[in-house]
Formats: sequence, C-alpha cells, structure tokens
Amino acid sequence: MSTALISSDTIIALATSLGTNGAIAVIRLSGLEAVRITNEVFKGKDLTKQASHTIHFGTIRDDGEIIDEVLVSLFIAPHSYTKEDVVEISTHNSKYIIERIINLLIKKGARAANPGEFTLRAFMNGGLDLAQAEAVADLIASENKASHEVAMNQMRGGISNKLQEMRDKLINFTALLELELDFSEEDVEFADREQFQALITELKTHIYRLIDSFTYGNAIKNGVPVAIIGKPNAGKSTLLNTLLDEERAIVSDIAGTTRDTIEETLNIDGITFRFIDTAGLRDTEDTIEAIGVTKAKEKAKQAKVLLYMYDEFDNTAEEVINQVKSLYFDGLKVILVRNKIDRKGGYFENVMDQAIKEALFTAYTDTLVAISAKDADSVRPLKDILVNAIKDSQLEGQQIITNTRHLEALQLAYDALEQVEFGMASGLPGDLLAHQVRTALRHISSITGDIDIDRDILGTIFGKFCIGK
Amino acid sequence: MSTALISSDTIIALATSLGTNGAIAVIRLSGLEAVRITNEVFKGKDLTKQASHTIHFGTIRDDGEIIDEVLVSLFIAPHSYTKEDVVEISTHNSKYIIERIINLLIKKGARAANPGEFTLRAFMNGGLDLAQAEAVADLIASENKASHEVAMNQMRGGISNKLQEMRDKLINFTALLELELDFSEEDVEFADREQFQALITELKTHIYRLIDSFTYGNAIKNGVPVAIIGKPNAGKSTLLNTLLDEERAIVSDIAGTTRDTIEETLNIDGITFRFIDTAGLRDTEDTIEAIGVTKAKEKAKQAKVLLYMYDEFDNTAEEVINQVKSLYFDGLKVILVRNKIDRKGGYFENVMDQAIKEALFTAYTDTLVAISAKDADSVRPLKDILVNAIKDSQLEGQQIITNTRHLEALQLAYDALEQVEFGMASGLPGDLLAHQVRTALRHISSITGDIDIDRDILGTIFGKFCIGK
Repeated sequence: MSTALISSDTIIALATSLGTNGAIAVIRLSGLEAVRITNEVFKGKDLTKQASHTIHFGTIRDDGEIIDEVLVSLFIAPHSYTKEDVVEISTHNSKYIIERIINLLIKKGARAANPGEFTLRAFMNGGLDLAQAEAVADLIASENKASHEVAMNQMRGGISNKLQEMRDKLINFTALLELELDFSEEDVEFADREQFQALITELKTHIYRLIDSFTYGNAIKNGVPVAIIGKPNAGKSTLLNTLLDEERAIVSDIAGTTRDTIEETLNIDGITFRFIDTAGLRDTEDTIEAIGVTKAKEKAKQAKVLLYMYDEFDNTAEEVINQVKSLYFDGLKVILVRNKIDRKGGYFENVMDQAIKEALFTAYTDTLVAISAKDADSVRPLKDILVNAIKDSQLEGQQIITNTRHLEALQLAYDALEQVEFGMASGLPGDLLAHQVRTALRHISSITGDIDIDRDILGTIFGKFCIGK
Repeated sequence: MSTALISSDTIIALATSLGTNGAIAVIRLSGLEAVRITNEVFKGKDLTKQASHTIHFGTIRDDGEIIDEVLVSLFIAPHSYTKEDVVEISTHNSKYIIERIINLLIKKGARAANPGEFTLRAFMNGGLDLAQAEAVADLIASENKASHEVAMNQMRGGISNKLQEMRDKLINFTALLELELDFSEEDVEFADREQFQALITELKTHIYRLIDSFTYGNAIKNGVPVAIIGKPNAGKSTLLNTLLDEERAIVSDIAGTTRDTIEETLNIDGITFRFIDTAGLRDTEDTIEAIGVTKAKEKAKQAKVLLYMYDEFDNTAEEVINQVKSLYFDGLKVILVRNKIDRKGGYFENVMDQAIKEALFTAYTDTLVAISAKDADSVRPLKDILVNAIKDSQLEGQQIITNTRHLEALQLAYDALEQVEFGMASGLPGDLLAHQVRTALRHISSITGDIDIDRDILGTIFGKFCIGK
C-alpha cells in the first residue's frame, strides 16, 4: 500500500463482482496512461482522440487475436471518480476473458490495483475527503434503508461539511491568536475571547451530538438490539414469533421453554432490529429482585430498546414498576407491553396500567401497549412503535456517525476543546492556547483527511476496500 | 418466455454478477421506454435529450431520497446490443441499492427480464443470428483459449457467414427450379444441373466437415480426453504427475498401484486436456490380448488421444504393435511413448523403436518419443506433441461446431442433400426436387435462425442464458 500512496502509475482491476451469474463485467483503469494503454489493444476508433464521457464499441486484440467485443467508456481527467483519466472496459463476463484482458493491459504497462486504490486516488486527488471515501465502503456494505441513508449522507459530505465549516472558523481564530504573539509586547487581543468561547461551545455541542449518535449509528449499521424481558410464560417467544411471522422460537405453554438466548433479526421499514429473547427471569419467580433482574439487566445493557412484557394475571403493578426502574439506564427506550388481553377476564385497559403509568411515565418511558401476543393484528402497532422509538429520537435529521475511527477522533477533539476552554478560563497565554487549539484541529481534520494522514492509517482504511474500488 | 417473444415492453435486469467482492454493479434496461423510465428517477441532465454512446453522472432518487450516485450510459436504437434503446446504470455494488433501483424502475414501468431476453431481442431485431446468439452464452462460459476461440469465431459469424452464403446460392437454384415449373410444357432447364450438382457437393463437403468438427469442438469445450495406456509399472502415473507437476496420483514401484481411473485436467497452451489414467492392463499380464485390451479399449474409446506407454524391459515390439492396432479406431491420435530411457541399459533410440515404427507409422501414428517419465525436461516435448496433435488436425483454420442443436440440424441437412442428389440422379421432376431442396434449406436456416424458429426452441436456447444477458 505504501508505494501506492505516492505512485502515479496506471492501475487496473476488475470493478464488478467476479461470478458466473452475470452477463457483463467491467474492468477499470485509472492513471495518466489509462487511455493510451487501452488504445494499444483496442481496435475501433482512436481512443486518444475521443471526448470524455463517451462510449466506443470495438474489439480487444492480443497480437491480432480477438479477445472480446467490448464497450470502452472514457472519463478524461479531472472528470472522473479518481480525478485521473479513467477507462472502463465492459466485457463479456467470462473469467478467461477478464484474465486475458487484465493480463494483456498489465503487459502494456498497467499495474494491478491494490484494494481501495481507486478510492484512495479519489481522496489523494481531492475528489473525496476521507470521511466520504470511508462512506463509499459503508455504502457498498449497506444492507438496509437506515444504514444506506447514513452512508449516503456521509458520502455526500453530510458529516464533513459541518466539521469543515467549524474547523475553518477555528483556524481563523488560531491565526488571530498567533497574530497576538507577534504583538505580544503590546498586549493586544485580536481574537475576541467571547466569540471564541461561543465557537468552542458550538463545536463542543456539535461534536458531543456526533459522539452521541455513534450508539445509534452503530445500532443501525449492525441492527438495533431489542431486549424482550418478562416473567416466564409472559409470551415473549409468542410475540417474537408473531413479529417474525415464523415459528423460529420454540413456543409452549410451559413456563421456561425458551432456551437461553435467541437472536432473530427483523427488518421493519428499512431498519434492522435484533431481538434478544431471554430466559432471564426463569429461575427467579420468587426472587425477582435478585438473580432474575441481574440476568435480565445484562441483556438489557446490550439493548437500545427494552420490550418489557407482563400481564395482569401473573404480575403486580409493583413488580413491573420496580423491575423497569431497576433495568433502566440513560438512553434505553422502554416499551411496556401488557399481554394476554384475549384471555378471559383480560381487558384492553385496566387499573394496573394506570398505576404503572403513574409511576413510570415521563421519567422512564411513555409507551404502554396492551396486546395479545399471538394475534398479528394486535401486535402490528408494536412494529410502528419500534420504528418510531428509533426514528423519533433526538437524532432525527442529525448527522450520524458509524465509524469507530471517527468516534475516537471526535472524543480526542472534544477533550482537546475542553482543555482549550480550561486554558482560556485560567488565562493561558496565547501561544499555549494556540497549541491546544491546534491539537483539537488535528483531531477534527483527521476525520476528513484535511491534514497529512499517517500512511499506515490510510493503508488500514483503504485496505478494507475491495479491489477495483 | 413465450410472452417475451412478442413483447415490446421495456425490460430490466442486473447485468453484472451479484456478489460482495465488486465495487460497481451495472443495471441494464432495454426497450422503447428505457430512457424515459430512467429519466424519471434520474437527477442530472435530461437524459431524453442526450446523444447515443454518452455517459451522464447524477443521482437516482425515489421521492427525493437519494438511492445512489450513478453513471448512466445511453445507447440509442438501433445502436445498441438489442437494437432497442438501452440504458446502463452503473451503481455502487450494494445488494440493497441494486434492489431499490430495480424495484423503483419496475414501479416506473419496466419489467424484470427473463433469462437471455436481452440477447433474444438482439436476435429478434436482427442484431445477431441464432448461432451468434448461442455463441454469446458459450463465450461467457469459455474457460480456456481453445473454447474461447471457437465461441468468439461463432459469435462473429464464422459459422453463419459460410452457411448463409451457400444457402443463398441454394435458394437461387431453387428459384430457377421453380421457374421451370411455370414453363413445364416447354421442357426448359433454367437451373443448370451440373452447376447445381457442384453446389450440392460443395455444400455436402462443408457440412460434412462441420459435423466432423463436432467431436473436436465438443472435446475442446469440455477438455480433450487423453487415455494413458500401458502395462503395469510402465510409468503412467509418474508421467501424469510430471505433467501435472504435482503429486496427485499415487506413484509407487509396485505394479498396479494406480486406482481404477484417475482423471486430471491440465491446461497446455490454452487447451484443456483430461487425462484418463487407467489400471486397464493390470490383471492381464499373461492375457494381454484378452481382458486387458478390452478394458483399455473402453478407455481409449472415450479418448481423442491415446498415449501408449511401454519400455524395452517389460515389452516386446510385437506386444506394442498388436495392442496399438487393437486399440486403434479412426480419428484416434496415437502417441507412442517409450519410457525409462534413464534406466541402466536404456537408450534414447533402440532397435525396438525401429520395428514399431515400421509396423505402425503412417497407418496408425507418426509419433514416437523416448522419455524418462520422472524427468520434467524429458517430458516437456510431450506437451508440445499433445498440443500439436490437436492443432495439426485437418481442422486447422476450419469452422468448428460445439453445439448439439447445430450438429443435429447439419445431419438432417446432409441427409436432405443426399436425397436431392439421389433425386437428380433418378431424374426426379423439378417440383419434387425443389421440395427436397427446401427441406435441406430449412435445416440449414434453423442454425442461423433465418426461418421462423419454433418458440419452444427459442425458449430452450435463451432459457439457458443468465438473466441480464
């Protein structure tokens, strides 16, 4: 990878997936010689004389032998993904043909690309910033609507733009701070400390929100974990089955049928939920406050959403209230689900709910639904509630980060900004303050790659890409 | 498939392989509405106003939501593969994105394509004849140089052109024959019977060669079968191992180590050879003329090439001569391989060879090599001999067929032409002769699809294609 970072040679790779179920394959070249090299083996129009964004039919020939009839697409620098000359050769999808053409073009002067080298070049040549480049890989890996949205937003500069805007303001202030040093004898303040503090606060708030979004970002990238917790026979597995519309979990009327933990994923409205069904409260019918809650807590800790299930026949309001309070932590979405409304004596609304609402609403949750877990119609509203629990969060419309590298950089930037604030409060001299600001700047800039990024880091980032991207 | 044959709607399919190791994917549309439908979801330039063979960057949007940044390539009828308007959308290679875009375009009026439907349209619209269309599938499936060459030749009209040329001549004669009918009272001959006979002969010769080429064509498509036959301990497995450069077969000094049949494939100079190693002569040291040869014959019958191995220590010239004669059949390439020249007392040339050459050369074979099977240097020339045994055949430079449908049609055409000849010889009236010629014509035309082809046949041919081709 390290040589690739400085090389300006022409690279080549298969850009489409290698498989036997496709009709065509696309081979991609990028670099100064991309057009010339292709033209050497192409019989058709003279490619060196064609305009950008045009397509040309012809044959690829090796010493007169026709390897394939192809379509060649030209992208002339800087009007390409990599900002270099790019050639895409659309061939018949035969492994033999692909290998022959790639080998032929390597013989003519191209070099086999490293993983992610096309995108690396796009980054090095200013076509994408680093966060955008990283989003390309996320976009390709995106499997549902939510993760696709986040990756697309990031690829289109959603995260970078705001950070760069605030970074520019910060750089301005740093310049003013450094200017003060030149006039240090005169005790002037070019950098308005109040405006400066306001900027730091704004930046800290923004960064804090981004850091905060990571849990959610990570959840939608990997699925939102939902813990289903309740007493044995509360109907957890039945609910899960109804949600999944399939008999994946073992359901039975005998308490404690559910095995230790079952994970099922369900895609609702483009968001993937990972349901963690637990046997948490099994051994603890009499000691709910003890072992049962401990176990359930462990499960709940991994969750973003808690579905707490109970019914009026097996639970008391106190039990429910105490357990939910005990399981609760900041950021957990609690959904109270009263089951078995279909049972003789069951009601859609009852006194128990009133007690629970009074004790838990506002502080711990604001959602309580009464259902019959085995009835799809009665369960359906729960799907909307789940989606809204995720969507209605304070993250609505906000930038969301999903990348641990960004998370770490943001945390370091936040710490550095706190140092700056502390420095200002304690009247730190301009040069030391400027030094601290530069530390914060470095961390912020590392996200978008607006500073020199360590080669090893770039190697790690782009090494994860597939070849041909 | 049957509706597809008459439909003129706009079809859509993923044209590249579906997999996770690619950077981009290509979605293809073909039909009257291809550009309009794409334009409805594309934000960028107005695609309906762009020239053919141009590429346009933009986004695909579903109700404002950006699904992907894409490159759209336009091919305006008739300048496309299908001769219809074709749009290719190059997207990021995410299954989610691909599904979203295809579903979106289906919602806008496209229809999911059937397997091979793009190529079917190319055929229906005159872009390819049927033999060419069939070659597209062969080309995609080609795994080595030889099968690639044959498919490429066929796709570029190699087989069709000559057949069509002769077919046109035949049609001319038929027209003249039919003209005679109008003047039947006057007893004129517009169609010169001598010229006609010459054409029939030429056509029969050509068709015979094509039929003959099928064995070879089939062999290179599926690998050339090579039987290695010889006494136990003749060094068959050792030779195979040296050829394969790997210890795949079990080698031992003990006679009869080789298990019943081992098949190994080896790619030499772009031709795949399937080596059939046999234990054929194991039980038959004393009754070589009996069971041993019978077994070996079975193996040889499946082969295109026979490597007959012997040595001067275990064999007599008579044995070799009798066995080869017994194994021989018309069309089998026999390569005599005398092994163990490295053994004390072994020679590069010896008296035995002279006797064998005298008895077998010209009629049965013309190749005898002396080797040491365990020595790669001494075995190497054998690789060239194998390749030449295939390449030097009378098929050099000739059209080769690989398709059983073509074989059957050619056999029927050949039979019909013999009937025509017989008819001429027996002074058959012009109208009956014309009828027989039309039968031959129908069979010839069915190869290129120059007549109405039964829908079921088309369904079978194109149903084997992948979707998107």
